[in-house]
Amino acid sequence: MSDTARLDALEALEAIRRCKAGYFRCIDTKDWAGLDVVLHEDIHLVVPEAGADLRGRARVVRTLAAVLDGVVTVHHGHLPELTLLDEQTATGIWAMDDELWFPDGSAQRGRGHYHETYRRTADGWRIAALRLERLRLERRAAPTAPWVVV
Amino acid sequence: MSDTARLDALEALEAIRRCKAGYFRCIDTKDWAGLDVVLHEDIHLVVPEAGADLRGRARVVRTLAAVLDGVVTVHHGHLPELTLLDEQTATGIWAMDDELWFPDGSAQRGRGHYHETYRRTADGWRIAALRLERLRLERRAAPTAPWVVV
Amino acid sequence: MSDTARLDALEALEAIRRCKAGYFRCIDTKDWAGLDVVLHEDIHLVVPEAGADLRGRARVVRTLAAVLDGVVTVHHGHLPELTLLDEQTATGIWAMDDELWFPDGSAQRGRGHYHETYRRTADGWRIAALRLERLRLERRAAPTAPWVVV
Repeated sequence: MSDTARLDALEALEAIRRCKAGYFRCIDTKDWAGLDVVLHEDIHLVVPEAGADLRGRARVVRTLAAVLDGVVTVHHGHLPELTLLDEQTATGIWAMDDELWFPDGSAQRGRGHYHETYRRTADGWRIAALRLERLRLERRAAPTAPWVVV
Repeated sequence: MSDTARLDALEALEAIRRCKAGYFRCIDTKDWAGLDVVLHEDIHLVVPEAGADLRGRARVVRTLAAVLDGVVTVHHGHLPELTLLDEQTATGIWAMDDELWFPDGSAQRGRGHYHETYRRTADGWRIAALRLERLRLERRAAPTAPWVVV
Repeated sequence: MSDTARLDALEALEAIRRCKAGYFRCIDTKDWAGLDVVLHEDIHLVVPEAGADLRGRARVVRTLAAVLDGVVTVHHGHLPELTLLDEQTATGIWAMDDELWFPDGSAQRGRGHYHETYRRTADGWRIAALRLERLRLERRAAPTAPWVVV
């Protein structure tokens, strides 16, 4: 492979990581316009635990904005395994954990892996498919004393 | 952009990530001499929740060493969005979580984002500005049974 | 350093990160054949808290498979400090956290750092030495109400 082709590959990995970083930040800061930017218009999002199997960027963003309204969320992604299939397509597996605090005082925390596909568009790499597989998912009905939000 | 300039950029991203990794490790292992190395001498550190607005490396290191004396801390940074503004300056946003256990048995845990600026010096990239914005911050007065430190 | 040598170095860092990502994923999904792939045949694994000081890939994989049978585990690695010593050898420090849920309802959670060595083989980079140093380790005998696994 030429030096230039190797650089292309390394830059693609950086761009995909940054795309996913934006995904997490935009969800947790409720930046729905920003989330729109990192998703492919044909995205297919599957979250089995939530019964979610959604197609299309507008529907995904609209659904997340509705479901997470008033919910404090923290999503963290860790140490991906990214594979460039060709110049326009890549796959990735990310370790993850998330925490959700609902307005009624209940909460959820989970760990697992995202299995994803990325597509390169004229505007850069975008998340084209996302499926969340869980290692562990826990819920609680009431706040966990003695922890107090400050 | 030339291949060499593209390599310069990729290596700068690596160097900044490593600089931030040293920041976390040195704080959590109380390696104050090591922390000195990753901070710019003109660093501006802002942690609103703690009322901290500190300027200058010596003052920042001295303050952290005093405030964290006897405190067990764990800080983790996740998946940055780094932007090289020019050859000497970069910005970054990091997802983060931290946990602090105080000598009196109280504790704190938080999640949020670091918004940072980096400057390249003759000795490498250094953190020049850091502002911590929280998504969630919790405190408790007493240890959380049934968890026991081993 | 030539552009090609710089590319070699950046690709080595990517390969080591991916190797470690596979280590975490394979342990947490109990993919023991996959774990075999990321470990050097002469690996030396030291986990002082568990009294573990194991040499050799077959012994490490066999021991982990036995010890973690029926245990739900989540291991996350964060933001490494990797150093290439030569074309065949590298070292790394990783911030980490892990959680283990045992079949009897007890659990453990810890944070710390992995101190590691990597060796390049004909099949790619492999973990050749791993020592886990803890910042904090907690255990509990019983499930933590009000959290419920779903």
